[in-house]
Amino acid sequence: MTSTTRRDLIGRAEPPRDVPERLASQIAFIAEVDRLKTVVRRSPLLAADRRENDAEHSWHLALMVTVLAEYADEPIDVARTLRLVLVHDLVEIYAGDTFLYDEAASADQAEREEAAADELFALLPPDQAGAFRALWDEFEARATPEARFAKAMDRLQPLLLNFGNEGGTWHTPGVTEADVRRRKSVIGDASAELGAYASKLIDLGAQRGWLRRDGGGDGVGS
Amino acid sequence: MTSTTRRDLIGRAEPPRDVPERLASQIAFIAEVDRLKTVVRRSPLLAADRRENDAEHSWHLALMVTVLAEYADEPIDVARTLRLVLVHDLVEIYAGDTFLYDEAASADQAEREEAAADELFALLPPDQAGAFRALWDEFEARATPEARFAKAMDRLQPLLLNFGNEGGTWHTPGVTEADVRRRKSVIGDASAELGAYASKLIDLGAQRGWLRRDGGGDGVGS
Repeated sequence: MTSTTRRDLIGRAEPPRDVPERLASQIAFIAEVDRLKTVVRRSPLLAADRRENDAEHSWHLALMVTVLAEYADEPIDVARTLRLVLVHDLVEIYAGDTFLYDEAASADQAEREEAAADELFALLPPDQAGAFRALWDEFEARATPEARFAKAMDRLQPLLLNFGNEGGTWHTPGVTEADVRRRKSVIGDASAELGAYASKLIDLGAQRGWLRRDGGGDGVGS
Repeated sequence: MTSTTRRDLIGRAEPPRDVPERLASQIAFIAEVDRLKTVVRRSPLLAADRRENDAEHSWHLALMVTVLAEYADEPIDVARTLRLVLVHDLVEIYAGDTFLYDEAASADQAEREEAAADELFALLPPDQAGAFRALWDEFEARATPEARFAKAMDRLQPLLLNFGNEGGTWHTPGVTEADVRRRKSVIGDASAELGAYASKLIDLGAQRGWLRRDGGGDGVGS
């Protein structure tokens, strides 16, 4: 997992040597991020009986941005929002996926992900490393309309997958309706209409018994 | 597989009913395209011992566009190029993946894919159905700089995967070095530098014995 090894191979193969350094770095990065396809998330697919991986998830978010951008409450630059969702999970190649409702793993998540970002983006030429790092920081900070909308997609998409699987990860021990409502509230921060839609999904999930009601406590870590 | 069924369910679950028709259509489309994650391609991953699916592939192309756009020989609108690659394989949800070197399957590919596009995009509200259809048509026609660059990514990415797997699908019976060179020439149509890089990969693959030389014939369907 050293940079030397990653730069020295495309998959199992030694790359061509007579290539400009800039392009060789870019290709090394493109080859390395293939690993995002192997980072498995908790959410089940709608279309098959298996869990989703981060690459599939990132593609789905990008498509959702193109379809749902009109619901953003503040004007958004769709191109930058697309870049945010394409890049937002890359650090999980080294840091792993952290389950939204796992507060123990969340404790050192930021530190692990910072280290992963430093390592992964360093494969790129410096200008692009900086640009990718800035996108990832922007997504995490949620301080721009684009980042808020990207994050809303990141929460709405697994909500759809869980709903379409009659609960999915909602059945995980310790997860309650109140947790889900709290975690999904960021959808409404970007779009009142999509926030209202998310609430309808949660209401219906609770009515159908797919979400555990626990008297309003937050149920995780408390 | 009727539209009624698809519109009536998110995965296995009946969706909320008190939702504006436009949003309900958009969500139905977003749920339906989850199936792209189940369309398996021929190309092997670099990072794991399995074949790639279309959703992973589409994400990888989008990331490649953000990293490699500077190599386009003509100015490109990166945002539209991203949309092209995000959408370009959606029709395979109904039409299936057609192996690049399978000329029998390629014969009715256009017809199958046209029918699939009509069916899939009709899930969207009419304005968005038209916009998605236009993107797909643009990609297929390769008449704009953006479409040429998108297509170049679509050919360069599996080239990297095959190279990194010491040949990958190049070992398929009937595939020769001349076929690969012919199919990959579209990369150079969008970018001389990336075209030259692709040629280096093919040269090296041939030197290492991962590509069958057959005296220059095109080797498929002849």
